[in-house]
Amino acid sequence: MISKETIEIVKSFRDARDWSQFHNPKDLAISLSLEASELLEIFQWSGEDLVCEEKLDKIKEELADVLCYSILMADRCELDLDEIITEKMKKNAEKYPVEAAFGNKEKYTELKRKD
Amino acid sequence: MISKETIEIVKSFRDARDWSQFHNPKDLAISLSLEASELLEIFQWSGEDLVCEEKLDKIKEELADVLCYSILMADRCELDLDEIITEKMKKNAEKYPVEAAFGNKEKYTELKRKD
Amino acid sequence: MISKETIEIVKSFRDARDWSQFHNPKDLAISLSLEASELLEIFQWSGEDLVCEEKLDKIKEELADVLCYSILMADRCELDLDEIITEKMKKNAEKYPVEAAFGNKEKYTELKRKD
Amino acid sequence: MISKETIEIVKSFRDARDWSQFHNPKDLAISLSLEASELLEIFQWSGEDLVCEEKLDKIKEELADVLCYSILMADRCELDLDEIITEKMKKNAEKYPVEAAFGNKEKYTELKRKD
Repeated sequence: MISKETIEIVKSFRDARDWSQFHNPKDLAISLSLEASELLEIFQWSGEDLVCEEKLDKIKEELADVLCYSILMADRCELDLDEIITEKMKKNAEKYPVEAAFGNKEKYTELKRKD
Repeated sequence: MISKETIEIVKSFRDARDWSQFHNPKDLAISLSLEASELLEIFQWSGEDLVCEEKLDKIKEELADVLCYSILMADRCELDLDEIITEKMKKNAEKYPVEAAFGNKEKYTELKRKD
Repeated sequence: MISKETIEIVKSFRDARDWSQFHNPKDLAISLSLEASELLEIFQWSGEDLVCEEKLDKIKEELADVLCYSILMADRCELDLDEIITEKMKKNAEKYPVEAAFGNKEKYTELKRKD
Repeated sequence: MISKETIEIVKSFRDARDWSQFHNPKDLAISLSLEASELLEIFQWSGEDLVCEEKLDKIKEELADVLCYSILMADRCELDLDEIITEKMKKNAEKYPVEAAFGNKEKYTELKRKD
């Protein structure tokens, strides 16, 4: 889970440095995308190697950065994390009904096409 | 916050569709990066327009997707969200000491260079 | 333009280091995405600042990296750069007819919706 | 190669739609990153599948989009494609000397560390 205390730590870090002034949603979205790329970079040139064991320390750090910017974006846009996730999961359940999506990795646009 | 119940909803969604078999960390990192791009796409061609008000419905959905894949990546690599965030914030506090970083948007590599 | 000589320089660089063995299309696509992120990073926290003048040296380097990986991806998949660009421009001309798209930054899916 | 004629086609497409007004470098960098993600999406959930054969039509289109935005970014910043690539290859040759980098996929920061 991500507790209220953890969210408070992230926001306090920002406020102690007076960084709120830079945190417009466009630059936050850019930053989130850059951190997701740093997470992805861990798997660059890994070929068929699909495990996380040896890369765990780096994964921890980069995934944490993605989460921090997600928290900051939600705070800037006054969004509740639990609420937006549960709402999205309801929409996804409609896009990916269990019977069509079971064991199937195709995108919902492909699933629909085959109806 | 992101409660244990919310995390359970995301994991149950995956398991009901038997998608765990596709969720190797490399493809999860790719997926997280793609969702972060969809969040960023909301701001494509927005020029100087830096607000989130009119884009809020889309931001909710795409940010939720980023969070879902973050939860799934953490689950796949057996990471605790609260723990990796608080650990990373400690490292960031060393990289960005308040006195040097206050009101300053430069990267820590630049902050250091100017020491 | 990108001359045949320039393409040859990029391929010789790869071959002199025996890197072809790592250049599967999935990892090349990851690499291209990472380089595009490094180009984007130049504009992180720039807010309303939309000019390239002061950032020109960095833009040159990161845009060159994007182009190098594009050349290597095309080579790996045996694609002709001139051909794929001109073919795509024909498709784009259908998606974005001049009368509907003139001075209009909306995506073709939006243009269509308003027909 | 990418001929002067191909570059002219891309610029004429933009000018016929009066899109130059939207093409500030920040939004072009965002767009380039989004297109690179669409190229990457072709390999989402592909696991160990590292070939391009079945995906060739999609690769052609998305790689072409990456190249189009690269051309438009270079035009907006008045950069010569051949020149920035050959200059970058010289820098890369210093970062990745043949003797250290031969058959070695490590990043130059790692190569250096082991000196």
